Amino acid sequence: MTTSALTREDLTALDRADTLAGFRERFSLPAGVIYLDGNSLGAMLRATAGRVSAMVEQEWGTGLIRSWNEAGWMELPGRIADKIGRLIGAAPGGMAVGDSTSVNLFKLLGAALAARPERRVILTEPGNFPTDLYIAQGLSKLLAQGHEVRMVAPDEIAAALDDSVAVLMLTHVNYHTGAMFDMAGLTEAAHAAGALTVWDLAHSAGAVPVDLAGADVDFAVGCGYKYLNGGPGAPAFLYVAPRLLADVRFPITGWWGHVAPFSFEAVFRPADGIARATVGTAPMISIAALEVGVDLALEAPMAAVRAKSVAMTDVFARLVQQRCAGFGLEIISPADAARRGSQVSVAHPNAYPVMQALIAHNVIGDFRAPDVLRFGMTPLYLGFAELWDAVELLRRILTEETWKQPQFNVRRSVT
Amino acid sequence: MTTSALTREDLTALDRADTLAGFRERFSLPAGVIYLDGNSLGAMLRATAGRVSAMVEQEWGTGLIRSWNEAGWMELPGRIADKIGRLIGAAPGGMAVGDSTSVNLFKLLGAALAARPERRVILTEPGNFPTDLYIAQGLSKLLAQGHEVRMVAPDEIAAALDDSVAVLMLTHVNYHTGAMFDMAGLTEAAHAAGALTVWDLAHSAGAVPVDLAGADVDFAVGCGYKYLNGGPGAPAFLYVAPRLLADVRFPITGWWGHVAPFSFEAVFRPADGIARATVGTAPMISIAALEVGVDLALEAPMAAVRAKSVAMTDVFARLVQQRCAGFGLEIISPADAARRGSQVSVAHPNAYPVMQALIAHNVIGDFRAPDVLRFGMTPLYLGFAELWDAVELLRRILTEETWKQPQFNVRRSVT
Repeated sequence: MTTSALTREDLTALDRADTLAGFRERFSLPAGVIYLDGNSLGAMLRATAGRVSAMVEQEWGTGLIRSWNEAGWMELPGRIADKIGRLIGAAPGGMAVGDSTSVNLFKLLGAALAARPERRVILTEPGNFPTDLYIAQGLSKLLAQGHEVRMVAPDEIAAALDDSVAVLMLTHVNYHTGAMFDMAGLTEAAHAAGALTVWDLAHSAGAVPVDLAGADVDFAVGCGYKYLNGGPGAPAFLYVAPRLLADVRFPITGWWGHVAPFSFEAVFRPADGIARATVGTAPMISIAALEVGVDLALEAPMAAVRAKSVAMTDVFARLVQQRCAGFGLEIISPADAARRGSQVSVAHPNAYPVMQALIAHNVIGDFRAPDVLRFGMTPLYLGFAELWDAVELLRRILTEETWKQPQFNVRRSVT
Repeated sequence: MTTSALTREDLTALDRADTLAGFRERFSLPAGVIYLDGNSLGAMLRATAGRVSAMVEQEWGTGLIRSWNEAGWMELPGRIADKIGRLIGAAPGGMAVGDSTSVNLFKLLGAALAARPERRVILTEPGNFPTDLYIAQGLSKLLAQGHEVRMVAPDEIAAALDDSVAVLMLTHVNYHTGAMFDMAGLTEAAHAAGALTVWDLAHSAGAVPVDLAGADVDFAVGCGYKYLNGGPGAPAFLYVAPRLLADVRFPITGWWGHVAPFSFEAVFRPADGIARATVGTAPMISIAALEVGVDLALEAPMAAVRAKSVAMTDVFARLVQQRCAGFGLEIISPADAARRGSQVSVAHPNAYPVMQALIAHNVIGDFRAPDVLRFGMTPLYLGFAELWDAVELLRRILTEETWKQPQFNVRRSVT
């Protein structure tokens, strides 16, 4: 792509050439909305409503308890897990679906620390998503064995991998900046230091190429409601390298992780495979919605998704630079597309009211404290011309100082 | 109720006098089915389909990320939690909804053990629901501080409450037999011994009167998909006595439990109230379904629900004794209704194929290993004449030895 000034016509030309454009009609998006927040909550697929209805009215309402057998509920979370595994290069048999990302992280960190009993450090970086840090802090305190959550700057991680490190815990694509770590390289470095790895794929699964088996990753977690379009609060997933499964011990041992849940034994015996990482009954209505999103993601070739995502983040960053110069915006996402996930983050001193004004005018991104406008690029339902229109609105809001209106300065819980 | 032989006419008379009969039409039950498994998976309310559709199509599909604020998603789990609290006599501010019963039990047991650092015993009974035992075992092993899960027979619990006991963990109504513990008495005895209590209300909430505040209970968990009719795998609830909240520390510390989740701080600081017990984002579609069930439960006066439940379990037990004598059935639920929850459990050497034959003929209860036929009584959607018809079918299956047919002897995962 050249660096000459882009026009809206350039972008409509990109839309005409877009091999993924047909996916847009599979989503139900409100008219007039430009949705740049699929990295927080993915959009709804048209097929989801029908699938959820069938789960509720036929499978639950008519099938009742029989649906555990007859509608395949027993196998449903595992089936979805395996499908997600195909999106992220998981080795077969390593994936499970259920619980939240945070709870799954607790399980995996607990397993990783148990597998490195002579080490005490969880190594991470301070910009990791807060819940990841909090879970590690809570687990360390719980164990009361002198564990430490050590946070070092991203470029100091490799050097910090010494023989005190039990586990390297990183989020592959940073939620704040969109910066992407070198998963294979850091996993190799961690292994060389005798440490295990836990990767958080919340902003990766369905958005960027991931090859868990190829990178020899030990553990991973991820989110169902962002690029997988699984619905609000969709159950999360986890991955355990099958080579670890026979010996791994999870800290939360519930009946779904038992080798024979319906024998109702009094003493826990872990299931042979990845089922040992599961705990309680999964929320099946939300599970049904998740599968629809995952199925669609599997239809789209990841190479095409990534190519469009890179083009979109490039275009968006260039438009911000070209059309909104002089307003104090600073793009904090990496300039190098190879180091960037599927979002563009832009700092501005008044990011909060600016984002409220954008949302009020139907361009939906989100705000991340203290000063970031976050714009997520979702190749399956977003077009290039929409990026032009979004940046033009941003320019208008900054030019006309719309964001100074009092209603945009009232803090709300989210965005 | 007399002990003379019951007739079907006696039962239709009870149905005519039933003040709760009107609730039946609020449920969507398949024609011809007699559903005696609401203690495993409650039935679907007609209103649920519409509520779930609105959550999916309007709130998610159209509202997108805005619904966290505009559709009140932020407050929704807490609102449902408070409603459940009204059903079980919770002190205000002590209830949270989310995660599975098992994960919630892990959180509360962890908090209880942390609050009794000089003690090492989790006291329970071997007939407790297995996941409760497994969670306690896993947590004890994780802490690696010499904790022990001590199991004693139900009638030995009071005597076993000594100064080694950190926490007494019991399920109020036993899943297998329906036997109900004296919650107030045992909580008082535990407190006298300096121990805390964790009560599992899976088979209590919505089924029997519970007064958590009145019994001065410390912690409780419970299930959304049984008598609350929240849908398959509905999110669970937990309770923490507000007097404990300021000091309690949970082992799983996720961002929803942070005092300011959207300030994205790097160090965990617990929320002031019960929010500190929450971890990750709740599965909102399943959450929406749960509220519909809880709202209906709040409409029904608990005294009437309990009175009908007692009458139903009495009637069912009498019918089994009167109509199925000589077939080797043994009622293992307590004869004293005051000590019994809302189910009747019947042992039989061939319980598995007998239950399969019942289900094949549209009387749905469940099997619990090794030899129990379990029949749940749900006063909101079950009539007395159905109990007659169910027992008559049982009699026919035992008389004609239908259960010997090969198809009823093939083991399936559930029931």
